[in-house]
Amino acid sequence: MNNTITAPKGFLAAGLHCGIKKSGKFDLGLLVCPFGAKAAAVFTTNKIVAAPVIVSKRNIKAGDIYGVVVNSGCANACTGKRGIFDAEKMCALTAEQIETKAKNILVASTGIIGHAQPMDKISAGIEKCAERLSATEQAGTDFANAILTTDTKIKSAVRIVKIGSKVVTIAGTTKGAGMIAPNMATTLCFVTTDCVISRPLLKKAFAEAIGCSLNRLTVDIHQSTNDTAIILASGLAGNKTITVQNANYRKFAASLKETAEDLARQMALDAEGATRMFKVIIKGAATQKEAAKAARAVADSPLVKCAINGGDPNWGRIICAVGSVGVKLNPAKVSCRLDDLFVFKNGTPAKFDVKKASQIVSSKEYTITVELGAGKRSDFCYGCDLSRDYVTINADYHT
Amino acid sequence: MNNTITAPKGFLAAGLHCGIKKSGKFDLGLLVCPFGAKAAAVFTTNKIVAAPVIVSKRNIKAGDIYGVVVNSGCANACTGKRGIFDAEKMCALTAEQIETKAKNILVASTGIIGHAQPMDKISAGIEKCAERLSATEQAGTDFANAILTTDTKIKSAVRIVKIGSKVVTIAGTTKGAGMIAPNMATTLCFVTTDCVISRPLLKKAFAEAIGCSLNRLTVDIHQSTNDTAIILASGLAGNKTITVQNANYRKFAASLKETAEDLARQMALDAEGATRMFKVIIKGAATQKEAAKAARAVADSPLVKCAINGGDPNWGRIICAVGSVGVKLNPAKVSCRLDDLFVFKNGTPAKFDVKKASQIVSSKEYTITVELGAGKRSDFCYGCDLSRDYVTINADYHT
Repeated sequence: MNNTITAPKGFLAAGLHCGIKKSGKFDLGLLVCPFGAKAAAVFTTNKIVAAPVIVSKRNIKAGDIYGVVVNSGCANACTGKRGIFDAEKMCALTAEQIETKAKNILVASTGIIGHAQPMDKISAGIEKCAERLSATEQAGTDFANAILTTDTKIKSAVRIVKIGSKVVTIAGTTKGAGMIAPNMATTLCFVTTDCVISRPLLKKAFAEAIGCSLNRLTVDIHQSTNDTAIILASGLAGNKTITVQNANYRKFAASLKETAEDLARQMALDAEGATRMFKVIIKGAATQKEAAKAARAVADSPLVKCAINGGDPNWGRIICAVGSVGVKLNPAKVSCRLDDLFVFKNGTPAKFDVKKASQIVSSKEYTITVELGAGKRSDFCYGCDLSRDYVTINADYHT
Repeated sequence: MNNTITAPKGFLAAGLHCGIKKSGKFDLGLLVCPFGAKAAAVFTTNKIVAAPVIVSKRNIKAGDIYGVVVNSGCANACTGKRGIFDAEKMCALTAEQIETKAKNILVASTGIIGHAQPMDKISAGIEKCAERLSATEQAGTDFANAILTTDTKIKSAVRIVKIGSKVVTIAGTTKGAGMIAPNMATTLCFVTTDCVISRPLLKKAFAEAIGCSLNRLTVDIHQSTNDTAIILASGLAGNKTITVQNANYRKFAASLKETAEDLARQMALDAEGATRMFKVIIKGAATQKEAAKAARAVADSPLVKCAINGGDPNWGRIICAVGSVGVKLNPAKVSCRLDDLFVFKNGTPAKFDVKKASQIVSSKEYTITVELGAGKRSDFCYGCDLSRDYVTINADYHT
């Protein structure tokens, strides 16, 4: 089975090394939908926005999308007017190859910040890439490789869902939540589907799927200048068009969410230096916003992340992190569980099997649940541990 | 010259190993003002508050303070009612030794969270400590040693200021901003002075001094459950009582601020695994609050901290961090300097001497200045680098 973004009907892909990365690894990819696709996207909320994000935000409003051009190795961020010109040029060059207009192309970049794109290499690369466009699994894999930076492996997820008698396929790929080359934490995510669905509902389902997956993942606190998640729907599955939030919509949305969660998990487990991932669930918060804030405080805490790296069930750091962000809590009702094991209950240390607790926090994936005792709202997020390798990756490289 | 908290007139101190720490290092200290002292304090804003903080907050309201009892190795946090009882008992035992009431004693603890105080050891220790009370520099050093956890050295600062014809001395000691044993980031700070000053003005000057020093220092994001900074004023310097915000007040306040800044610098440079420290100044913000938020974003960013550890002038991470926290900025006017060297100017990479930039970020102390171009407010904070040693210290220890 094709486990890449070329799995849904109506997509061609390619990836190759055009010369941006000195390592010789793939650094340019094309994703093409010859018959056009409805598109939706989620972009970075960083106030410093990279040029490709500015251009893609504009183009996605223009109508159907026929292609996406992506490069890794250079983020085209903090590059002023020249950056915008280059991002537009990448769209134009791609459009020329597949005989469409520049405004029908989206562009995404990831890599070193503050450097201009090597446009000669990219220009030649786009031409060569267009020649290789194919719907094979290999082509999807090549594209998945072309978007990577410090990732150690490609990420991909495919889900199949029956809508009426028709098989609808959803596929996605993403680059890891690590820094590039290593200069900037950047996430790029591309999802394809052949589902026949209206653009407003595609947008809604995608925003919700990203909202509870990639947007819940924190590796090193701040969102990059280049974060881009794009979904393209070719509409070739033949299902009855989804135009209202009926059972078919819910089926599609659930599968899309699963796909996005799968990608988020793969990202967390391949985050720079990460050896394990965890889900933080906050319960009993006064508001959902406070629950989300407390969850992030735990997942972002270097103390918690180091303890988890060491396989240490150090619940004190978890409680301290929750207490430090100003959310309402009732100290006498605060409790903490590692998976199902209570380590702190109603404001008092629980008597627990330390060996069992260590086993839990040393496992590849587990859940930390904190009850605040201040209300009925809850929220969650995903995090990963902080290792010496993370520091090595991000300290030893020189710009 | 006595460079410890016994330098001002009217203070006795002592420190020893009572048996809390397995390492044999000092873990119990007494600071006594036989004639009483006006006191002011700043406590943690964490919603999870350790027992000694609860007790000290109450006692400081009662009037003059005659002594402070401090232990390291056990934080007495998340210990329920038993914790409050133990903290009160520590005050009562100290009061007994120096013939005062328990409510005239403050208590502070730092160390592992969730463990009960070994009261038999502490009880015997307080008795022995009281026998050793002295105004010598050695006694001050012993106290400074007794509050340490993962610090590699004691921190102390002394300032002398002439108020009228009288010499007023201010001295302080603090424990490093690292985790204990290592279980919790905890800061304890004790400042002594012989200045004659009203309690409201002592409180005001101290809050301001801590506000622009210890409270501007971020090592690992969250404030601990035990943070406590106390100033005691014996009033024995013989100066004219400071009761209004006149020139004498400003002199005292400026010296106190200098003392606190000196301690904060020592803390940053001795933070767990830290090899260098930096000051982040944000200019051109819409509000001071936003300036402070942006400064913290830079100083807390693991990406920035790793780059600094590697001596890498990676300004992209700085700009990204600033952009990621939602503060107003004008992308076309954003600039960044390392000391006086522009690396990014008006939204465009500056042409700079990379060798010089590397030299700056590899030095022991330097300043990162970011202009937001959104207004006229500014603020600052202090940070330190993130090293492999930080991870080692905090990952390899098991609770």
